[in-house]
Amino acid sequence: MRILLIGAGGVGDAVARIAARRSFFESLVVSDYDLARAERTVAAVRERHPDDERFRADRVDASSAEAVAEAVRRHGATHVLNAVDPRFVMPIFDGARQGGADYLDMAMSLSRPHPERPFTETGVKLGDEQLAQHDAYVAEGRLALVGIGVEPGLSDVFARYAVDHLFSHVTELGVRDGANLAVAGYDFAPGFSIWTTIEECLNPPVVYERDRGWYTLEPFSEPEVFDFPGGIGPVECVHVEHEEVLLMPRWLDADKVTFKYGLGNEFIEVLKALHKVGLDKTEPVSVKGVKVSPRDVVAACLPDPATLGDAMSGKTCAGLLVTGTGKDGQPRRVYLSHVVDNADSMRIDGAQCVVWQTALNPVVALELLASGVWKGTGVLGPEAFDAVPFLDLLASPDGYHSPWELNELEPEPSAP
Amino acid sequence: MRILLIGAGGVGDAVARIAARRSFFESLVVSDYDLARAERTVAAVRERHPDDERFRADRVDASSAEAVAEAVRRHGATHVLNAVDPRFVMPIFDGARQGGADYLDMAMSLSRPHPERPFTETGVKLGDEQLAQHDAYVAEGRLALVGIGVEPGLSDVFARYAVDHLFSHVTELGVRDGANLAVAGYDFAPGFSIWTTIEECLNPPVVYERDRGWYTLEPFSEPEVFDFPGGIGPVECVHVEHEEVLLMPRWLDADKVTFKYGLGNEFIEVLKALHKVGLDKTEPVSVKGVKVSPRDVVAACLPDPATLGDAMSGKTCAGLLVTGTGKDGQPRRVYLSHVVDNADSMRIDGAQCVVWQTALNPVVALELLASGVWKGTGVLGPEAFDAVPFLDLLASPDGYHSPWELNELEPEPSAP
Repeated sequence: MRILLIGAGGVGDAVARIAARRSFFESLVVSDYDLARAERTVAAVRERHPDDERFRADRVDASSAEAVAEAVRRHGATHVLNAVDPRFVMPIFDGARQGGADYLDMAMSLSRPHPERPFTETGVKLGDEQLAQHDAYVAEGRLALVGIGVEPGLSDVFARYAVDHLFSHVTELGVRDGANLAVAGYDFAPGFSIWTTIEECLNPPVVYERDRGWYTLEPFSEPEVFDFPGGIGPVECVHVEHEEVLLMPRWLDADKVTFKYGLGNEFIEVLKALHKVGLDKTEPVSVKGVKVSPRDVVAACLPDPATLGDAMSGKTCAGLLVTGTGKDGQPRRVYLSHVVDNADSMRIDGAQCVVWQTALNPVVALELLASGVWKGTGVLGPEAFDAVPFLDLLASPDGYHSPWELNELEPEPSAP
Repeated sequence: MRILLIGAGGVGDAVARIAARRSFFESLVVSDYDLARAERTVAAVRERHPDDERFRADRVDASSAEAVAEAVRRHGATHVLNAVDPRFVMPIFDGARQGGADYLDMAMSLSRPHPERPFTETGVKLGDEQLAQHDAYVAEGRLALVGIGVEPGLSDVFARYAVDHLFSHVTELGVRDGANLAVAGYDFAPGFSIWTTIEECLNPPVVYERDRGWYTLEPFSEPEVFDFPGGIGPVECVHVEHEEVLLMPRWLDADKVTFKYGLGNEFIEVLKALHKVGLDKTEPVSVKGVKVSPRDVVAACLPDPATLGDAMSGKTCAGLLVTGTGKDGQPRRVYLSHVVDNADSMRIDGAQCVVWQTALNPVVALELLASGVWKGTGVLGPEAFDAVPFLDLLASPDGYHSPWELNELEPEPSAP
């Protein structure tokens, strides 16, 4: 396996650091629009693994499918891992195929709201542009494994595991994500790309119900407090547009699929304010003679999330709340989760926990693809593959040594 | 009187429209960094007053005292009226004096927080740089009438009136400003310069007490709901840094002076969010190869307040809550106020009510200076002059026909 990693931001950098601990691939090219950033990542890997000759840096323009295809050919890449923000999904997706490589990403092609009824009906859905090419991929014998970060990604693996091994009937697959992170020296310092966070939080959130199909709500709808494990505790969660809601129902049987993000009230107020002022917009505005995208200015005002690891403390939790009927016919409710302490991810790979948790899963998936344990053709989500080998490799001390948990919760009281 | 108006934004435009109804001056040059904007204002005046030959447009760089002095000499101006944002107070103030003209403004030189204790002690206060030149102005026989908009401005005139005619002892002079404006088609559209609003709302608010002098608080401190007249009703008000608190105690006897702004909870949340993200900053940040000031980007994302008049509805109220002992020795509490309905300011002068209400007062003051009813030398606030002729000219049908109100309120219960 020869990997072309595109993007050396927080997640891309962590991908390289994690992969360096494993032997399943021959080479990994770290590429970025900014070559210096790619070189910094390769230098960081070399510092920790001085004898590892598998890593090189290159410059790639992710906005051009031709440039991506050319980079695939230049490096003889067998797999492209997309680790840039979702604006660039389609050129990288198309470029990988043109160049002749399989493809993985952690966020899918962007949605566009319904032109008249944005808060009740879906328009173009997350991933629609990619999933439309499924048959062509099958015909070519090529694989695109889409949404294989932590969420989407590990959350989808959990869903497949719950459906296969824990439940006879699933009422709801509900992703619930929360954290108790603090960054010393900053009042406000998001741990993940603000560009992506704005995109997912301000788009109309999407919900799936078996009888209704996909539909949308107002942003920040239906707040609920979820009690996260690992000492994180209760966090206010709201509906957010996320890939899992689009992926899970395509392969798994469930009455309802939701995604709720534990943004916390402060972060919600900031996002609402940015939206009110129009600072979430991506179209450039003229400011005293220069043109800038307001959302890029927001990102420029905040610290780079990839640089916050040393100042950060606390834990982040990704997980799936599954409600339904157990294999024994009794009501069951479980929370499958993966909790990362920032102190651990910094110690193991020198990466902050939010980007590290995202980066871990595509590396696990690449290893399963390299060994042939996972195989498939088409445009597939993580729930299209057997969950058990993934969860085993993730947790095993000989694998990635990053345990996941199953918390048995009180079943919900029956509806009256 | 030959007036050089600097700034053809919302307030400057309204100044020209209001002044065109009056005959006390020989000429008024509307100047701006952007000549087209100045020409637009002159054209708007000509449209309403086709025979009025007193208005001309010119280009002036308000950031250069030399350029301002040169414009004063070029036009033989006797008075400079500064109607640009407060970043440019000092070059215009200095340029007027160098050119040989008297000076008026509606906002004073900027403050700088105390370097160690910003939320308890003042650093450089609003207007300090201007007031430091008082003796030099007196020696030259020159006048700078500072803070003669609506707030500061009319609020200071109200304070002088209350001290002279309504109270024997003043416990508190408390400016209270609120509105019930809505702008059709916009979720969020501030009626006044967002640059200035951010500046005044995010700086540490200043309070004056007789025994303590000036001191500062945290932004948005001590929220209180004030019931505004004219159908506006209750609005949440918080402490804001404002010139009145610096001006009133220099000429008037009061135990305490405060300024509270009826921002409303939504606007407060937006300002807090902008501050958290760092979008209130004025120092340029690098955004994909270009440098921009984040606060300028915020302004560029919002509609130009001067253009909102047609879509705006509601009223704005500027006023002063005075607490103390009446001339009869009894506890007294009055609210002196000036309420403007946007429909009226649009009908009379084609200007939206917030900028119109600000612009009205320097024109009244210029007329009193032209007639010699007001005269003085030095750097003086509005409370240094007799309030009665100002309030009469403001309200009189032969004057500006814009009435003010005195509301007698229940005196506060005595302290236990």
